[in-house]
Amino acid sequence: GPGKKETSAGGEHPLPGFRLSAVLRESARDKTIFLHGKVNGDGEATEDAVVIMERAPFQAESVSNLLGNNPAMTVQLKNDIYGVYHLSPPAELNDIKTTVIRPATEKHIKKYLHQEVYLIQEKGEDYKNITLPFIESQSSSIQWVYNILEKKAEADRIVYENSDPENGFLLLPDFKWNQKQVEDLYLIAISQKRGIKSLRDLTADHLPLLRNILQEGTEAILKRYKLQANQLRIFLHYQPSYYHLHVHFTALGHDAPGITVERAHLLSDVIQNLEMNSRYYETRTLTYALREDDALLKCFKDSGKC
Amino acid sequence: GPGKKETSAGGEHPLPGFRLSAVLRESARDKTIFLHGKVNGDGEATEDAVVIMERAPFQAESVSNLLGNNPAMTVQLKNDIYGVYHLSPPAELNDIKTTVIRPATEKHIKKYLHQEVYLIQEKGEDYKNITLPFIESQSSSIQWVYNILEKKAEADRIVYENSDPENGFLLLPDFKWNQKQVEDLYLIAISQKRGIKSLRDLTADHLPLLRNILQEGTEAILKRYKLQANQLRIFLHYQPSYYHLHVHFTALGHDAPGITVERAHLLSDVIQNLEMNSRYYETRTLTYALREDDALLKCFKDSGKC
Repeated sequence: GPGKKETSAGGEHPLPGFRLSAVLRESARDKTIFLHGKVNGDGEATEDAVVIMERAPFQAESVSNLLGNNPAMTVQLKNDIYGVYHLSPPAELNDIKTTVIRPATEKHIKKYLHQEVYLIQEKGEDYKNITLPFIESQSSSIQWVYNILEKKAEADRIVYENSDPENGFLLLPDFKWNQKQVEDLYLIAISQKRGIKSLRDLTADHLPLLRNILQEGTEAILKRYKLQANQLRIFLHYQPSYYHLHVHFTALGHDAPGITVERAHLLSDVIQNLEMNSRYYETRTLTYALREDDALLKCFKDSGKC
Repeated sequence: GPGKKETSAGGEHPLPGFRLSAVLRESARDKTIFLHGKVNGDGEATEDAVVIMERAPFQAESVSNLLGNNPAMTVQLKNDIYGVYHLSPPAELNDIKTTVIRPATEKHIKKYLHQEVYLIQEKGEDYKNITLPFIESQSSSIQWVYNILEKKAEADRIVYENSDPENGFLLLPDFKWNQKQVEDLYLIAISQKRGIKSLRDLTADHLPLLRNILQEGTEAILKRYKLQANQLRIFLHYQPSYYHLHVHFTALGHDAPGITVERAHLLSDVIQNLEMNSRYYETRTLTYALREDDALLKCFKDSGKC
């Protein structure tokens, strides 16, 4: 890969002196684990870190080559035509994608902690009275989005750009995708225009932007990755994880996180709704799930709305 | 581990001389891959083999020890407090569970073969011209549904009953649920009224039925299983797997099959849409995925609609 090697000693290491505080979450199905730990900061300071580890998907060519070279296989069980074996592949097939958030705030740590979930039925007036004031009271920075839009970060990752300040967008791979196989393709289109917080802010005025994202986004993906528009799931989240308008593009066959009916809204449906009624998302009751530790859930409870 | 070591040479190897024939299926999320290959059999014979490879889930203790030892981490990207790294762990953390079926028959191979999926944008007129004639041409019997409604089958499984022939329904556990824990609760409400094939047939006339299912279904689940209405995901499928109106109830935290945005429609949204426009589902463009071997996909292709 194009990355530079970090040393594993001293302050340059991403996780110096890591000590585990808690396992926040793990999924045996996804082969992921989310850890909270302490690391050494400057001087004698200690910092919190969230570490997300995920095993790499297989690549057909490399595992096929591996199997063709008679690798050592330890038998676990054998029954008739069925056998189960342990196979230890060489290091280059064993990448663990390790995402580090450091220093991590209490909010980061909570975000990844496993929690019960509850459904909210958010009326248009609930948005105005509860959700919007809540969002505005939060100081969660979206500077990293502006860094991308201003090409101060990730400029080399841009797949497609429409630079129109009103109706343009940037398309780039999501962090979740390693870009090695299209089976789990995942890109994000980020609106150039600022101030569109979510679905709730969309009106018919945004139809040109949304149609550009749909049309030009699918064309760019066809050109670069050879996936047709009808092999893509294109959607928005409500609630989104950050309040700057963005649209998710995933391979339709990929069982990606966040594609469930209570969170995802197909872009084609959003366009259809706004064509029918410019105020659709101002007035519509929107349903979504919140985790039990979500401060927004507490706001709804305090208002007697759930 | 307790397994005995197999040699990697000659006829004792589970996959001697493996050559890849085809990748049958792969899941980037699950970190699995299903391969069809040829291996050397007795003498000069060649055998078919199916090989299923799956990466190991993480164990908290071993990855935490690994991180505590300042492992080499190669930076992939860095932006503000977020960093993504490659980490190559030692061999003992890299087990690949390898299942071998050998000799594999044609049936084994087909069983694991992945089907591409394609998105359909079904306009109201497409439903009338393509989908409805297709459904009517199929002879798939729903006698088993009538058996339940007439209590000739599964009568002992009924959780709740409203026997009104127009606006009543039966509620019973889905076969996918073993009823042992509410974490994966899954029930089905089946309309007493016959002839409502799917979402497409619903009008404002069906609102009393739909409201009964929502209200009485959630009350029955609270009473029997102690799950609140806001801990349930209540939805219809389009396309459904059988053409008699039914509604799915699952635990909200359960990552059940068929809950993705391109298949599931929340009952609360369906009610809201019909309250807005009685002909909503007659005219709306509905989006759903079909497998490449689905006969309905062929109908859309033959009509030049995808």
